Amino acid sequence: MQKKIAAEFLGTFWLVFCGCGSAVLAAAFPDVGIGLLGVALAFGLTVVTMAYAVGGISGGHFNPAVSVGMVAGGRMPAGELPAYIIAQVVGAVVAATVLYVIASGKADFSAGGFASNGYGDLSPGKYSLLAGLMMEIVMTGFFIFVILAVTSPRNPSPGFAPLTIGLTLTLIHLVSIPVTNTSVNPARSTGVALFAQTGAVGQLWLFWLAPIVGAIIGALVWRSVFDDPAEASLGVAPAE
Amino acid sequence: MQKKIAAEFLGTFWLVFCGCGSAVLAAAFPDVGIGLLGVALAFGLTVVTMAYAVGGISGGHFNPAVSVGMVAGGRMPAGELPAYIIAQVVGAVVAATVLYVIASGKADFSAGGFASNGYGDLSPGKYSLLAGLMMEIVMTGFFIFVILAVTSPRNPSPGFAPLTIGLTLTLIHLVSIPVTNTSVNPARSTGVALFAQTGAVGQLWLFWLAPIVGAIIGALVWRSVFDDPAEASLGVAPAE
Amino acid sequence: MQKKIAAEFLGTFWLVFCGCGSAVLAAAFPDVGIGLLGVALAFGLTVVTMAYAVGGISGGHFNPAVSVGMVAGGRMPAGELPAYIIAQVVGAVVAATVLYVIASGKADFSAGGFASNGYGDLSPGKYSLLAGLMMEIVMTGFFIFVILAVTSPRNPSPGFAPLTIGLTLTLIHLVSIPVTNTSVNPARSTGVALFAQTGAVGQLWLFWLAPIVGAIIGALVWRSVFDDPAEASLGVAPAE
Amino acid sequence: MQKKIAAEFLGTFWLVFCGCGSAVLAAAFPDVGIGLLGVALAFGLTVVTMAYAVGGISGGHFNPAVSVGMVAGGRMPAGELPAYIIAQVVGAVVAATVLYVIASGKADFSAGGFASNGYGDLSPGKYSLLAGLMMEIVMTGFFIFVILAVTSPRNPSPGFAPLTIGLTLTLIHLVSIPVTNTSVNPARSTGVALFAQTGAVGQLWLFWLAPIVGAIIGALVWRSVFDDPAEASLGVAPAE
Repeated sequence: MQKKIAAEFLGTFWLVFCGCGSAVLAAAFPDVGIGLLGVALAFGLTVVTMAYAVGGISGGHFNPAVSVGMVAGGRMPAGELPAYIIAQVVGAVVAATVLYVIASGKADFSAGGFASNGYGDLSPGKYSLLAGLMMEIVMTGFFIFVILAVTSPRNPSPGFAPLTIGLTLTLIHLVSIPVTNTSVNPARSTGVALFAQTGAVGQLWLFWLAPIVGAIIGALVWRSVFDDPAEASLGVAPAE
Repeated sequence: MQKKIAAEFLGTFWLVFCGCGSAVLAAAFPDVGIGLLGVALAFGLTVVTMAYAVGGISGGHFNPAVSVGMVAGGRMPAGELPAYIIAQVVGAVVAATVLYVIASGKADFSAGGFASNGYGDLSPGKYSLLAGLMMEIVMTGFFIFVILAVTSPRNPSPGFAPLTIGLTLTLIHLVSIPVTNTSVNPARSTGVALFAQTGAVGQLWLFWLAPIVGAIIGALVWRSVFDDPAEASLGVAPAE
Repeated sequence: MQKKIAAEFLGTFWLVFCGCGSAVLAAAFPDVGIGLLGVALAFGLTVVTMAYAVGGISGGHFNPAVSVGMVAGGRMPAGELPAYIIAQVVGAVVAATVLYVIASGKADFSAGGFASNGYGDLSPGKYSLLAGLMMEIVMTGFFIFVILAVTSPRNPSPGFAPLTIGLTLTLIHLVSIPVTNTSVNPARSTGVALFAQTGAVGQLWLFWLAPIVGAIIGALVWRSVFDDPAEASLGVAPAE
Repeated sequence: MQKKIAAEFLGTFWLVFCGCGSAVLAAAFPDVGIGLLGVALAFGLTVVTMAYAVGGISGGHFNPAVSVGMVAGGRMPAGELPAYIIAQVVGAVVAATVLYVIASGKADFSAGGFASNGYGDLSPGKYSLLAGLMMEIVMTGFFIFVILAVTSPRNPSPGFAPLTIGLTLTLIHLVSIPVTNTSVNPARSTGVALFAQTGAVGQLWLFWLAPIVGAIIGALVWRSVFDDPAEASLGVAPAE
């Protein structure tokens, strides 16, 4: 269990440091910035790389909503959930702190939104609370559905699971950054909200509620429609 | 068969929601928009992710032209075609509806073309009907050719089939968005045309005709030139 | 042999139609164009997709310089070279013709350079003949080196060979489009030069000479430094 | 050992020639330049392609910090370190020389920073020495951690190791180019610094110190937290 906690801490650190870091440091760099496409790629690659690295140890969640979805999908004992979520949130907060220190190492730095998630006035494209809520639920639902499907013991190509899961996160960002700046991950939202100069903390409830609701729906759809009862036994570690 | 229909419904929902969603929401976002490159990547990744997730269940078509091509290629019984196509079209329409609700959640929203396909005045680059017809036939033809080839039982690397098929769709978009906004998929064209404020519905015939003609040509080229009679038996599910 | 010729014809058609097509149609599309990054990705994906599709049939060269390199590397009998090169050049010319017909289906079309290769005044960045010559030799040399290495029978991950080879072509384009518009492929250069309104045909000699010289150097480096004599027997088809 | 040195020489040549070459030649090409996203992709693909090509021979380091990390991680005998580092630095300098000759083959060429790394006034975004130091340590630390993890004998998907390692380098660049122009590789920094018209050589100490410190930390974290003593035996070549 100690190794699992360390893996989730490091993986979530990496997700926030590089995903949000690419948004804060490089997205709008003058003339040659990486834009939303680069940010979407960065988020996805954090999962691709760390899921191949430590997915065999902890499952490679790096995201409380994913951990909830794994429990709802019958892949993880509920008793492990608190330790996973704590490791993820701590990893996200530490990553945001290191990112803040580095980002503030230039003369004209201003934290601004600091890659935090939001709706209404804090949505990048000024989308409403309802639009943000729907987007986060749909996206997290499909995210968990894909994860459960590709890590199913019946999947014929298990080696591609980390790549597929990471590319799903890239795809989610390609669509939804303008609406909520894309969360689908309460730890990621929490880490950077603490440093945002906007009211991002006041909107954090949505980025815990919607991803978790979406995760449970995605897991239920998978289990009720596609799952084979024989595989829904506890202890099946994803990405193995 | 119920699982297959559910898989095709969800996969086509995902293709339209994320593919067209990236175009509607993120392509032209000010300064940091993902552009046509991001849209091309998004369409391809919808297929990569859902084909790894449920390709083993339904074959992972998410596209009536692909289903027709699989029948023409001797990989699927013709009797399954109507159920597949209905599931795909319904999935596309539901996805476009959800996308419309989310996209309209901002003050200055206007549906415009809503990522619909078109020729002539409705072509992004104002290309003629003939140019659009040729492009859609050539692209769908190669698309089905690649699918039949990489899912052939003799292919030495079956695990790469979903990745290859999705990247083929990305490639097709990299070239042909300026001409027709890229269909190669009648369900995708139908779903968003219903919400377009342009005359996209009146041009839908071409985006059913050309992809299906292309699919049949692609399947015939594969079967007549490359196929081994021994493998052309029914019941060979792609991506298994 | 008939299947091999058909595979090389179709693969080179695909490479020119999509690679050069992305440059002609989509690279500079207003505001949301795919740019040189999208073109680089498109060229690479043509090889990824068709090498997975028909690499097991013909080796998936789609390029006279690659075929020369395979002969120099001891992987293909010299007697097959003429048929391969003819199929590749014909495929490239047919692809350029279809692309021209489609591209001219808009009111204000002008062929211009039509994605042809060039040096001096015809170099995208006005690089000299010598710079172009060096670039094409170095790039094709490494291209053939990578191909021989990843298709070596001793390579532990043969399934990744088509992906690696295609991504090498993407990488080559990311660097060298500004210098020569990137050839490393005499068939690709020849196909579009016929339609260019510039003097591209008069510079074709360099895009036959340099890639073939580079290919031979790359093959010799591989054979003399890394190759194991036991594997240098004829008849070892790449990508199998 | 001769093959290993040749592999490291060629691989580091390729990394510098294409990675830095994409930055010098293509990043800021007018209107259609590849930007920082293209440069990040290019650096990553140099490792993907050459690690699949010669990773089985030398381990595919192409970077003195990686070689130090492999020694610290117990994967390589310390006695091989000097030969590896010399081959890498020579490869980087030769690559920078060839790149300089080609890049100067246009009328208005000016070397400028020549893709060199820097902090303070030489940082692309004018980030401080401390920010640069922290970024390089964190990034190289995770880089070596991922490499040790995915090349561990217990990793269930060894074929994906070169892809994962290269994509990690892409991810690192997506975040950190604005801060230091991204080194994590002392050989890469040294090669181009010799041609920079800025004071890049005077800052080279940081791009040797920080990556090596980071590499040792990354290796220690892996060994102390995740490693199984049984696998920490010498002679386990990565990517095999």
